[in-house]
Amino acid sequence: MPYIPVERHLPGITGLLEYRKDSAAPIRELTQFLLRGPNSLTEAERELIATIVSHGNQCRFCTTAHTAAADLLLGEQATTAQVKQDINAAPVSPKMKTLLTIASMVRESGKAVTEEAIQQARQAGATDLEIHDTVLIAALFCLYNRYVDGLATALPEDENYYSTLADRLVNHGYTRLPQGYDHLKK
Amino acid sequence: MPYIPVERHLPGITGLLEYRKDSAAPIRELTQFLLRGPNSLTEAERELIATIVSHGNQCRFCTTAHTAAADLLLGEQATTAQVKQDINAAPVSPKMKTLLTIASMVRESGKAVTEEAIQQARQAGATDLEIHDTVLIAALFCLYNRYVDGLATALPEDENYYSTLADRLVNHGYTRLPQGYDHLKK
Repeated sequence: MPYIPVERHLPGITGLLEYRKDSAAPIRELTQFLLRGPNSLTEAERELIATIVSHGNQCRFCTTAHTAAADLLLGEQATTAQVKQDINAAPVSPKMKTLLTIASMVRESGKAVTEEAIQQARQAGATDLEIHDTVLIAALFCLYNRYVDGLATALPEDENYYSTLADRLVNHGYTRLPQGYDHLKK
Repeated sequence: MPYIPVERHLPGITGLLEYRKDSAAPIRELTQFLLRGPNSLTEAERELIATIVSHGNQCRFCTTAHTAAADLLLGEQATTAQVKQDINAAPVSPKMKTLLTIASMVRESGKAVTEEAIQQARQAGATDLEIHDTVLIAALFCLYNRYVDGLATALPEDENYYSTLADRLVNHGYTRLPQGYDHLKK
């Protein structure tokens, strides 16, 4: 049972964003910009950052949702599975390994990010902006995970919910629910 | 030394918000709404939530800045000092004690927020919206603290910086730096 009266059929973050639309608007806008805006990191790479942070924070709704989004963008499910198990064994670029490592440090604490990890990212070709965006995306998902679990939001009753949600996140982004997706509310 | 090239004389969050203005805009907007928007929690009470979370995350820039803002709003410095030491011994309302306790749990993890803590907040008179906003403000400062420390931003060279910043946050809010505050950049 969620701690506040969100609409019963809107699981995880979706009910919270409807509950308080004034705070939802800038949260949606920030997420859309960071995860879907112009960027030298691909959308899939940015979804992997969201996934590894949510997984580390044991936020089941966010982990499953962003895993599904990354899987859809990548066209396979092996990468997300391996990233969650062992970043360095995952089939991602050397640069992404260093950025996912930084994201995991941010998840733990801002102070956990070491100069060595930053240097390794630079040596692997990461730009200042990629390092910045990795830290901010990781920090944003530390917000999301706490928001979703801190108010004890519900999980969807049907696991197929996540593939519908992933389709929406990949094809329509993080702004408000477009027409034709009303079934996500049911 | 910050990990990315922010303007040398913009310490803490201020340099980051100038570094990437596109992501800064919704972050500023969200903060302005949550900390300065219409709310049954006073501005000082909301600054206390920011303070306790930043203090728990050992983010020196954010803790000092929001302590200074709360102090200015309250007209004294004893409350912030005691809140940081022991919530239950602090001179705040019984309701605020329960909300600050929830904020501290959110800081640790979304999953750390107990049903008992929520019930105690309700018994002390907290509304659904107050509980919601407490969780979201606490989550937002988990983002800020990680952003500020994860990129190793600098502290101001002069401690007086914080009183100027607090004056700005109290009198002008969290939107962009208004005219006449250019000295905060120097």
